[in-house]
Amino acid sequence: MWKPDRTSKTALYQQIAEYIEQRITLGEMPPGSMLPSERKLAEQLGVNRSTVVQAYENLRASGIIDSTTGSGTRVTKSRMGMAQLQTPNWNRYVEGGTLLPSLPFLRKIREGVQSGEPFINFANGELAPELSPNEWIRNVLQNQPFHEPLGYGDPQGYVPLRNALASFLLEHRAIKATDDSILVTSGSQQSLYLITQCLLSPGDAVAIENPSYNYSLPMFQSAGIRLFGLTVDKDGVDPEEIRTLFKLHRIRMVFLNPNYQNPTGTVLSTQRRADILACCEQLGIPIVEDDPFSLTSMDEEVPPPIKSLDRSGTVLYIGSLSKVAASGLRIGWMVAPHTVLQRLVDARQQMDFGLSIFPQWIAAHLLDSSALTPHLYRLREALRSRRNLMANALNRMLRDKISFELPAGGLNLWCKINEDVDDYTLLRNGFKRGVLFVPGSVYGSEAGFVRLSYARPAVEDIEIGISKFSEALHETITR
Amino acid sequence: MWKPDRTSKTALYQQIAEYIEQRITLGEMPPGSMLPSERKLAEQLGVNRSTVVQAYENLRASGIIDSTTGSGTRVTKSRMGMAQLQTPNWNRYVEGGTLLPSLPFLRKIREGVQSGEPFINFANGELAPELSPNEWIRNVLQNQPFHEPLGYGDPQGYVPLRNALASFLLEHRAIKATDDSILVTSGSQQSLYLITQCLLSPGDAVAIENPSYNYSLPMFQSAGIRLFGLTVDKDGVDPEEIRTLFKLHRIRMVFLNPNYQNPTGTVLSTQRRADILACCEQLGIPIVEDDPFSLTSMDEEVPPPIKSLDRSGTVLYIGSLSKVAASGLRIGWMVAPHTVLQRLVDARQQMDFGLSIFPQWIAAHLLDSSALTPHLYRLREALRSRRNLMANALNRMLRDKISFELPAGGLNLWCKINEDVDDYTLLRNGFKRGVLFVPGSVYGSEAGFVRLSYARPAVEDIEIGISKFSEALHETITR
Ligand SMILES: Cc1ncc(COP(=O)(O)O)c(C=O)c1O
Ligand SMILES: Cc1ncc(COP(=O)(O)O)c(C=O)c1O
Repeated sequence: MWKPDRTSKTALYQQIAEYIEQRITLGEMPPGSMLPSERKLAEQLGVNRSTVVQAYENLRASGIIDSTTGSGTRVTKSRMGMAQLQTPNWNRYVEGGTLLPSLPFLRKIREGVQSGEPFINFANGELAPELSPNEWIRNVLQNQPFHEPLGYGDPQGYVPLRNALASFLLEHRAIKATDDSILVTSGSQQSLYLITQCLLSPGDAVAIENPSYNYSLPMFQSAGIRLFGLTVDKDGVDPEEIRTLFKLHRIRMVFLNPNYQNPTGTVLSTQRRADILACCEQLGIPIVEDDPFSLTSMDEEVPPPIKSLDRSGTVLYIGSLSKVAASGLRIGWMVAPHTVLQRLVDARQQMDFGLSIFPQWIAAHLLDSSALTPHLYRLREALRSRRNLMANALNRMLRDKISFELPAGGLNLWCKINEDVDDYTLLRNGFKRGVLFVPGSVYGSEAGFVRLSYARPAVEDIEIGISKFSEALHETITR
Repeated sequence: MWKPDRTSKTALYQQIAEYIEQRITLGEMPPGSMLPSERKLAEQLGVNRSTVVQAYENLRASGIIDSTTGSGTRVTKSRMGMAQLQTPNWNRYVEGGTLLPSLPFLRKIREGVQSGEPFINFANGELAPELSPNEWIRNVLQNQPFHEPLGYGDPQGYVPLRNALASFLLEHRAIKATDDSILVTSGSQQSLYLITQCLLSPGDAVAIENPSYNYSLPMFQSAGIRLFGLTVDKDGVDPEEIRTLFKLHRIRMVFLNPNYQNPTGTVLSTQRRADILACCEQLGIPIVEDDPFSLTSMDEEVPPPIKSLDRSGTVLYIGSLSKVAASGLRIGWMVAPHTVLQRLVDARQQMDFGLSIFPQWIAAHLLDSSALTPHLYRLREALRSRRNLMANALNRMLRDKISFELPAGGLNLWCKINEDVDDYTLLRNGFKRGVLFVPGSVYGSEAGFVRLSYARPAVEDIEIGISKFSEALHETITR
């Protein structure tokens, strides 16, 4: 973002006024559009509020913007020379469309993350920079000469990567797949998007775990899909509940995250995996098995995936490198029956003409490399010590106020607050103190839960962050 | 794709039978699903048809597949051990969803391209391998140490790339933009997808050029958008037609491809650019200016883009590296007013959590590099000689049968056939002879036009390809 130049001879307020005027003239902020509040803009630009007040004053005096008490500051509609222009009413356009906007909670958190302020981030379920294989990726880039074609690629994905994935899935997940049955996507998120956009229709009912990461995704609502929750107990989801939901609502698909479920950290038991598959086979409904965390086991290994038991083509299996290597790589995959893949490949083609060759080429090298196993080993070690650090701090500072199970893998600790609290107040109180986390209600749970990710913050910030969280919680309870 | 091993002691037909059985057992081809015809599979595997006949015979004997005359070969529904499984009726699922399948024409062409057969490809509007800056990209990878964060990135795009784009757009397209007003996308295709999904609603009417690349995109129909055509004459589109369409159908957006329009090659005149902007400003409807070809001028430069005249925030400008560097990079951009960008960024976040850092990092280096200008110079030279080669061959072999204008830029030659021909027959006759091109009807034109791309085939294949096309055309006319 633009910042005023403090070494310039032009006064700060004047630089700001000129900058805003220029953006208005270029149509970036058309007549009628809202300017940020003085307080907010001052924060963004790192200047005193009075400087922004002066800049706005200036623009108001030239008739470029006007302010009405209560409804903020806007670009003047009848600016000289602009009077004739009836610019598009963009507000009406952005309210249209079929993709719903994100949850306000999540937007608030994202704004925090992007503000550049030094928040301690327990909100993002991603790896800290030192947990990603930076050195190793640099090596691939520098030492593997790149000789791949640079035209539009195969919309199903780069063949060497599909081959590498077939071996990887066999070795690490006991899944037999051929390059033909694998689709490369830009992460699990795109896999989920393709499934909801191409295989489900508005009005369809689907079952998802409750709480679940999927509740945080507006994409289901955007596609007009009705969500029904399956209770998550310590062994995951009960197949009988699937049967009941099928009878009641004719659910057409079941979404499961069987390993270190996001947000609860639960592992679906071996028995239930088999039972759920049998149940869904009998009912003829597909299972989407979302498995981004299985290779992050800190204690024991997870049972083989449902897909490894599937002989009937019931399971759409999706995975990703986001949680075990680098989410910025944007590489995920799906294993599915042919008819399904063909349909999804065709749709993906329409959305973006397929993936860039570069992340695919890098991912193929990573998966084929002998450095993969040592990397995973180090990752698990690091996650274990981070998790323990967080758990110890929580036990020390908040023993009577909260309760949680130690997750055996994944990036998140799911924490129940033993007293009545308002989610939004707690989030705000954390925000004020510089700590970010996700309230459980984002995942569809009742109030009084939070998801704390131990993978993202700097190790040395974990304890400090928990003490800030503890302060925020105490403030929220006593109010 | 899997191929039988010709050095193995196991007979080919047996290898094929085992391979198919394995895929059925893994649920990749669930009970009831169709197998390819014997002829087609033989082609795909590069074996005699009789070998496949024997393999199918074998599988039929084991009760794994069955064939009914007229309706082909399918995986048996009541296989032993499978009898209980009522697998998902995938056919019903893949027919659902909101994204419509691609045009059969385009699928046929794509199959041809992917078959691995040595087709001469006048169909794909992309650069031949030798026109892409391979060496230069290899240099970036090997000599620029990669030190970027590997977490989920900024969903609006990598900031150094947005800065590089701001300078690039100012220098090459006279567009003033800040990093804040630029969204990085995975190509123009994703920009168009975001616009149709987020800013338009089902039932909305939009105006597009006729013929137009946009007609080939099922995404408009998928989003329930009604398309109305604007005639393209030698100076592009007439603003009066926009006014008329607005009166008749309340069109809500105008899509234009003003430079070397795909497929006609037309350039919108300077006067009309100003007039169209004024007209749309007055009506309050946005213009989507799709500009992938402007830097491919072979003769003279094109006029400045409509966006460079825009002071009212009426134009959404989209560009891409696909046609000037490498389509496999998947890097595009959009310049738009703030409200619009915020909405699109939020939606993109839901679709794929933003773009991979790697193509963005490479693109930033390419755009910042002093090698860009010489690359563009070489590209234009090469395109010019390819275009001339194609035009000369056409004039020599088909002077009386066709007519065309020499395009001054872009990758395509738009060719009118002076006699009545059936598009599909012509395509098939070309296919038989090993030459691919796109019938004009894909772009919404009346029958009797074809789009021939001179950028993709090997230079030495251009003449040969045109002679094959000429044969195909003669056969189609005389039938
Ligand atoms: C359960 C689950 N599925 C999918 C995703 C999306 O991950 P990506 O698109 O980065 O692969 C996440 C990320 O948090 C997740 O937790
Ligand atoms: C006019 C036009 N717009 C958009 C595109 C999509 O290009 P990309 O998504 O590769 O940037 C094309 C490709 O042919 C095109 O011709």
